[in-house]
Amino acid sequence: MKSKIIDDLTWRYATKKFDPKKKVSKKDLDELLEVLRLSPSSYGLQPWKFLVITDKKIREKLRPRARGQAQVTDASHLIVLCARTDIDGKYIRKYIESIIKVRGVTRKSLKAYEDRMNAVMKSKSHEEREEWASRQVCIALGMLMAACAQKRIDCCPMEGFERGKFDEILELEKSGLKSVVLCPIGYRGADDFAKNKKVRFDKGDVFGFI
Amino acid sequence: MKSKIIDDLTWRYATKKFDPKKKVSKKDLDELLEVLRLSPSSYGLQPWKFLVITDKKIREKLRPRARGQAQVTDASHLIVLCARTDIDGKYIRKYIESIIKVRGVTRKSLKAYEDRMNAVMKSKSHEEREEWASRQVCIALGMLMAACAQKRIDCCPMEGFERGKFDEILELEKSGLKSVVLCPIGYRGADDFAKNKKVRFDKGDVFGFI
Repeated sequence: MKSKIIDDLTWRYATKKFDPKKKVSKKDLDELLEVLRLSPSSYGLQPWKFLVITDKKIREKLRPRARGQAQVTDASHLIVLCARTDIDGKYIRKYIESIIKVRGVTRKSLKAYEDRMNAVMKSKSHEEREEWASRQVCIALGMLMAACAQKRIDCCPMEGFERGKFDEILELEKSGLKSVVLCPIGYRGADDFAKNKKVRFDKGDVFGFI
Repeated sequence: MKSKIIDDLTWRYATKKFDPKKKVSKKDLDELLEVLRLSPSSYGLQPWKFLVITDKKIREKLRPRARGQAQVTDASHLIVLCARTDIDGKYIRKYIESIIKVRGVTRKSLKAYEDRMNAVMKSKSHEEREEWASRQVCIALGMLMAACAQKRIDCCPMEGFERGKFDEILELEKSGLKSVVLCPIGYRGADDFAKNKKVRFDKGDVFGFI
């Protein structure tokens, strides 16, 4: 018998055609956003921001920059997962402050941790830091998609879009952000054409045991 | 009332100290591996391989290359998530063959899709392709961690290790692989020190609504 988890992940697929009339409820959206907020990241630094776009005009403007794909306008909500481009000493300090606040520990007890984060971030070029942040965003995307499947909410991860144009339209640069990946969420249309059998390589191809 | 999903993700944390005596069962491991195999990836290309390491000697050898962290040797299983470095026309062809086999469609019907994947991959430098593959691996990591939390299996995503040394010890280069991230899995020790209150930025910091 298949487990619930495997059932969920077998059910999901990259939905191309959403039912534009079916909306994700406020309660469900809040839960999915909380999944993103709780996602793990390297050092716990959360180098991300998640934009939820419902504005019709903006979505119409974005669509041609994502190869005209209908998911951008037709899904219930369009989530744009962004990486922060401003992970520096000041940002790390802000994170340290939040640890002090939540855990009631002393700043001194976190000194070595802060130093290490600063050293690691300084050892990376600006591009490497952005890439590092983008990978963390992809971890959050994985968490989000797993949660969507659990809740039988459809989604469609999308990498094929003009990042520069998205960043421009959403005015991300001034906020220290860059778009990494899109995840429209909602409910599959009755006429969705992507309901094909899932294709995955055999176990022998993707696992190794040492 | 909190949902099951949020409960699970609140329960999880990056476990530093595993109980070396508690093993993940074969059944649970198989399920977690199936989660990895079912993970979504760009174009469905699955540019990854997942190594499950139980060999004690190898794990002892790897540990000093991961800042001596105990999780590497003490967790039930060490999963090394790898990116493929060989995503080329031949690999894409293999993927197309697998679609034909699973869905019973004609090669002709997949021509445009194959051309597009080839064009996109060719437009990237070798480094960009590897980075792209690494991001897909991070999506799979997110899925894996979500499933671990659902099953109350502990894990600890680890980026802080010497990739080159890991690749050498595990002889990854000849298999067209590069290590991206580690995920030891198992059960938290009674004396684990990392059971601190979870620190996350406020909703206002991580969400934007447009």
